[in-house]
Amino acid sequence: MRILLDVMGGDLPSRALVKGGVAVGRRRGIDVVFAGDPHEIEAALADSGEKPGAKFDVLPSSQTIHMENSPVKAVREKKDSSIVLGLNALKAGDVDAFVSPGNTGAVVAGSIFILDRIPEIPRPGILASLPTLTGEDILVIDVGANSDCTPEQLVHFGLMGASYAHSVLGIDEPTTGLLNIGAERGKGNRLIADTFAQLESGPLPFAGNVEAHHLLIDRPSDIVVCDGFVGNVFLKAVEGGISAVTSLLKRTIRGRAIAMIGALLMSGSFARVKGSLSYRTRGGAPLLGVNGVVVIAHGRSDAVAIGSAVEVACREVEVGLIDRLSQGMSGWREHGR
Amino acid sequence: MRILLDVMGGDLPSRALVKGGVAVGRRRGIDVVFAGDPHEIEAALADSGEKPGAKFDVLPSSQTIHMENSPVKAVREKKDSSIVLGLNALKAGDVDAFVSPGNTGAVVAGSIFILDRIPEIPRPGILASLPTLTGEDILVIDVGANSDCTPEQLVHFGLMGASYAHSVLGIDEPTTGLLNIGAERGKGNRLIADTFAQLESGPLPFAGNVEAHHLLIDRPSDIVVCDGFVGNVFLKAVEGGISAVTSLLKRTIRGRAIAMIGALLMSGSFARVKGSLSYRTRGGAPLLGVNGVVVIAHGRSDAVAIGSAVEVACREVEVGLIDRLSQGMSGWREHGR
Repeated sequence: MRILLDVMGGDLPSRALVKGGVAVGRRRGIDVVFAGDPHEIEAALADSGEKPGAKFDVLPSSQTIHMENSPVKAVREKKDSSIVLGLNALKAGDVDAFVSPGNTGAVVAGSIFILDRIPEIPRPGILASLPTLTGEDILVIDVGANSDCTPEQLVHFGLMGASYAHSVLGIDEPTTGLLNIGAERGKGNRLIADTFAQLESGPLPFAGNVEAHHLLIDRPSDIVVCDGFVGNVFLKAVEGGISAVTSLLKRTIRGRAIAMIGALLMSGSFARVKGSLSYRTRGGAPLLGVNGVVVIAHGRSDAVAIGSAVEVACREVEVGLIDRLSQGMSGWREHGR
Repeated sequence: MRILLDVMGGDLPSRALVKGGVAVGRRRGIDVVFAGDPHEIEAALADSGEKPGAKFDVLPSSQTIHMENSPVKAVREKKDSSIVLGLNALKAGDVDAFVSPGNTGAVVAGSIFILDRIPEIPRPGILASLPTLTGEDILVIDVGANSDCTPEQLVHFGLMGASYAHSVLGIDEPTTGLLNIGAERGKGNRLIADTFAQLESGPLPFAGNVEAHHLLIDRPSDIVVCDGFVGNVFLKAVEGGISAVTSLLKRTIRGRAIAMIGALLMSGSFARVKGSLSYRTRGGAPLLGVNGVVVIAHGRSDAVAIGSAVEVACREVEVGLIDRLSQGMSGWREHGR
């Protein structure tokens, strides 16, 4: 297996990302192609005692798409960027998957332009896997690819999420919930009302409306469907809530001797909680619905996080997710949808 | 001052809410009228050593609007409910404000039907006051009154939020941010793009786009504007993130002796953090834009939380918020909007 890793455009220097790529390449026994500044990549490979070759290869790029660049414009104009070159390599079959911590909008736009969509899927969606108190993750789709959605698009997010849950996670009959602001039928906006009706009469086991404060606590369904604007706000609000508690706790403890001793004794517990809720072990969010395995890593990814993102891509390749998604879509269409 | 407190329809029995009303009535030197089942209210008053009279009065109701009732239908059909009777009392001028922990949709619908809107305001919005790490609260509007919004409505949420921040909180030139999924201009959906353009050319100091994970940490603006669907998801996601961390921490500590000792030594710190982030001390969310002081308390309100909601109503009455909002709107209209 050969995975392309874009090492440009993340918040961290490309050296850290190369280090993560080398580690996961060795651990997993896979080949990794690094797309980016060739001098930096070669220097980072040397630091890890490696040279460019079949196992760790370099796809040199001379341009970088930055976080603040307009996605569509950047993809059209920066033909020699790591994102465009990397997606072209995936399209050509030179690699099996593409992983990037760069500009999410550019990865989405580039994937649609270069790889195209899987037939029958109106829009691709980004799937986030979130830890819950039940010990099992909950899948939320879309968390940022589409800011304006139709009910049909939301239903297809559900279908793709279910395919992923079944194929990659081995969940037998995954249930889908609709992110809403109340549990009762009739709550929410027009988009939600129309989507509710379609999901209810659709082929997926439907868990009904689910509310944001329950997702991480009770895990009311395997998959949660929402438009990309709401999903992105949800994700960042959870992150904000968690940061607020932990920062406040640290600040309250500081300077109070007894509390500081307490914190010291508890530090193992803090580390466990931090580990359980960390994006670093989740690493990557698959972009589902484009014709190739694309995984979006957090912009703040370090070596560990980028390694988990590559792992996510490996699992998708192993189970043949793209074929399964295509077959799933034709299957659902034949069953009257 | 005379505040009407609806003691039906919350999650807690009305006795607990009467207790909270009596406490705030004594503390604040205000009169409280309790709307609900007269036997329960009288029994609860007796428990507190009070009798119905001028200071603590009873508005007897025979019907209750429950959480699962359809708001508009319930308000139309349950004419003898505490919500409808209470809002009628406010409309008639028998009381200065209305506070309820009941069905939010019914309070919103009832307020619009019975009190009507303030002229020039297209839709009322619910304003939530959230604690931040900076020590000052951030105001978010709308958090649930309107699930489908126009840019004009969002701009008016900003105007009302600014009026509130200035009049009630004494903030000189309050800034308004637009809740979005990126800091850069051009991010987000169509509603956000149109609202951005209107806010930018409008009379309020505009802080631009603000992101969900920054609100509680950096407090990027005094007021944050969003549609009620997104605002409600935001609020519940923050709540979920906070609950997840605290539950996970408790669970991780349990059974590990050293960590338990640590937690014991830290318990003061935990209590402080819990206090800082608690809705109990915030208590009430004003419904702004209707022609009367209406405060929505959390459905799970206990005696302390309902007391804070009544305090919120008192402050609005003291500063004459309704007149200020009306004047503000005509002022802004005259300035060319």
